[in-house]
Amino acid sequence: MFNKKIVESLGKSSMIRAMFEEGARLRKLYGDDKVFDFSLGNPEVEPPVEVLDSLKKYVNSEEQGLHKYMNNAGFPDVRQKVADYLNKKSGIDMTSEHIVMVCGAAAGLNVTLKALLNPGEEVMVLAPFFVEYGTYIDHAGGNTVIVNTMKDSFQIDVDAVEKAITNKTKAIIINSPNNPTGVIYSRESLEQLNKVIEKKEAELGISIFVISDEPYVSLVYDGIEVPSTLSIFKKSISINSFSKSLALPGERIGYIAASSRIPDVETLISAMVTLNRTLGFVNAPSLFQKVIADNLEVAVNTENYKKKRDILYNHLTKIGFKCIKPDGAFYLFVKAPIEDDIAFCGTAAKYNLLLVPGSGFRGPGYVRIAYCADIGMIERSLEAFTKLAKEYGLS
Amino acid sequence: MFNKKIVESLGKSSMIRAMFEEGARLRKLYGDDKVFDFSLGNPEVEPPVEVLDSLKKYVNSEEQGLHKYMNNAGFPDVRQKVADYLNKKSGIDMTSEHIVMVCGAAAGLNVTLKALLNPGEEVMVLAPFFVEYGTYIDHAGGNTVIVNTMKDSFQIDVDAVEKAITNKTKAIIINSPNNPTGVIYSRESLEQLNKVIEKKEAELGISIFVISDEPYVSLVYDGIEVPSTLSIFKKSISINSFSKSLALPGERIGYIAASSRIPDVETLISAMVTLNRTLGFVNAPSLFQKVIADNLEVAVNTENYKKKRDILYNHLTKIGFKCIKPDGAFYLFVKAPIEDDIAFCGTAAKYNLLLVPGSGFRGPGYVRIAYCADIGMIERSLEAFTKLAKEYGLS
Repeated sequence: MFNKKIVESLGKSSMIRAMFEEGARLRKLYGDDKVFDFSLGNPEVEPPVEVLDSLKKYVNSEEQGLHKYMNNAGFPDVRQKVADYLNKKSGIDMTSEHIVMVCGAAAGLNVTLKALLNPGEEVMVLAPFFVEYGTYIDHAGGNTVIVNTMKDSFQIDVDAVEKAITNKTKAIIINSPNNPTGVIYSRESLEQLNKVIEKKEAELGISIFVISDEPYVSLVYDGIEVPSTLSIFKKSISINSFSKSLALPGERIGYIAASSRIPDVETLISAMVTLNRTLGFVNAPSLFQKVIADNLEVAVNTENYKKKRDILYNHLTKIGFKCIKPDGAFYLFVKAPIEDDIAFCGTAAKYNLLLVPGSGFRGPGYVRIAYCADIGMIERSLEAFTKLAKEYGLS
Repeated sequence: MFNKKIVESLGKSSMIRAMFEEGARLRKLYGDDKVFDFSLGNPEVEPPVEVLDSLKKYVNSEEQGLHKYMNNAGFPDVRQKVADYLNKKSGIDMTSEHIVMVCGAAAGLNVTLKALLNPGEEVMVLAPFFVEYGTYIDHAGGNTVIVNTMKDSFQIDVDAVEKAITNKTKAIIINSPNNPTGVIYSRESLEQLNKVIEKKEAELGISIFVISDEPYVSLVYDGIEVPSTLSIFKKSISINSFSKSLALPGERIGYIAASSRIPDVETLISAMVTLNRTLGFVNAPSLFQKVIADNLEVAVNTENYKKKRDILYNHLTKIGFKCIKPDGAFYLFVKAPIEDDIAFCGTAAKYNLLLVPGSGFRGPGYVRIAYCADIGMIERSLEAFTKLAKEYGLS
């Protein structure tokens, strides 16, 4: 009676969300302090005080028109501020006309993919990856091509990308700092990727867009550089949200920045603005457009996240788990001690540890630990991890 | 290089939005007070003071977690309040489980259509109608079937609907009070429609859903009844937004209410919640979920709109224009004195009157006047309308 494809997919729905719901169930059963929920990238922190002050400023003002329609692309002054910020940060040359304000990164990805893809065109994703990319690509009528990153390092396997490019390749999605691995793709690998793309474009007479999903770009530790995709790739589209950097995931606010170097970028932006409307977003929420424009230089305190990363990383590696030390985002991607990561998560749940199987990111044999959680919970969880390690004879 | 279908449609993009942009251009040229912009349903009023107070209450509070992720369906307490409100208003029997909070009515329609439609299934719309329904249906893989309403009265032509139902009919979209006509569909016509639907469902062995787009349901004059579609139609899905009723169009907040009488409604809701996420909305903006939940009984002052309707309606009919007196919404749908409504709008623009051609709503020969505008502008516009009428020898 309903959409068959959607109904059939319901059982297989997001492992992350399933774990989130399971967490709620276990908390009811055992109490809040007995459940160690590492399932969802739902920042535990409140937004920075600058953001809350800015919100108060607008709401307590007598300013008119804060809640009205504007151009579907967003408020012109907000778009200009985003362009100025990107120019300053990356030494590029954007104007307000290259920016579309959107309802978060998931909205930006859906709008971008629909604006680019003709039926049957291919979009490459680098595993492990946030699997809903595949659903977005499907909604836009495209086909997903999965290419694995390098074993253990999770850096881009540029040779594998080159081999996977066909005359139907329209775009490649990259996500750095990466969910689920926390890895930042190196400048070297991105520049190599750019060379491969330009070579294959010339060879096949096609255009390949680099869609960079960048919600974690401000969550970086130890001063590591996140190379600017807008400055490296000519046909680049950078999509950002303030869900993680300003801890505003519920408010659905972000932007698309389409490089001024894209040929006929005006048409692309027109298509995006029209789609922003007709896909049902209409515009990014108006009040929060104003708020984020005041706070482009602000980010949540990464020192807190770093502290959490270090507590967990140090403990897990000490008790025998294998894990790359992440440079950004708020995830650890830990090797499961058995091949079957889903079974391993089942065992972890016995200790009230809620982890997400790597299979849910096309990274089987690993589990994702989202450490954007209360530090008290993290400290209480260490004993449970130790018991888990012992069950597998690790320590 | 981009999505061909979208790029080709760009030239034909929304006449309403084109007029909105034209208005901005003319205002720059002639000054704000010399341009009479009746193009966009962008409420001129600010949100009711109760809404602004509620917003201040949350923003100035120390309440934690206002901006975080919640279940993709929305906050449970907000969904419960919406269900309670609908039950009280319409004497029906809904729970929070039948409500999905969404980013406005356009989002609700996209989610609903995608949840219902299999490729090639048909959705009926009653002309004149908000033409983007056709785009939403297309995005969901369906085909749009247009059925005209009754000549002059714009009430539902139930016989025409019956004739247009096929074994591929999946849904019918109704919109009352109507954009662009301001007409409220009578209880009698809705009950007849229900009989026809039940008869054809039995005859053809199909399920036909009634999708009711209800953003204007609180904007009604002279105490006229808007019959509850949830109480009339068994397989009804009511979609509402607070863009018009609370003057919050920029904030993108609304809900889907799927009737508890729909067989297997749990599966439908699961599909909607999943699609809310994967289509890129993720969830309705969190802060405004809380705000609207406090203000379900509140609406903008309809007396102001009524006053504006009366000034314009009385003047236009006095100077010779023909127009049905609308019972709701904030639109007049006026018969053009010539067959070509687009040419007529061109002539009106000479007098700095920005009207939208009825053709943009599949209602050729008419123009839409959105009177959700400043009352001073409306009063200043009367002389321009008189000149326009004289040019056509009406008065």
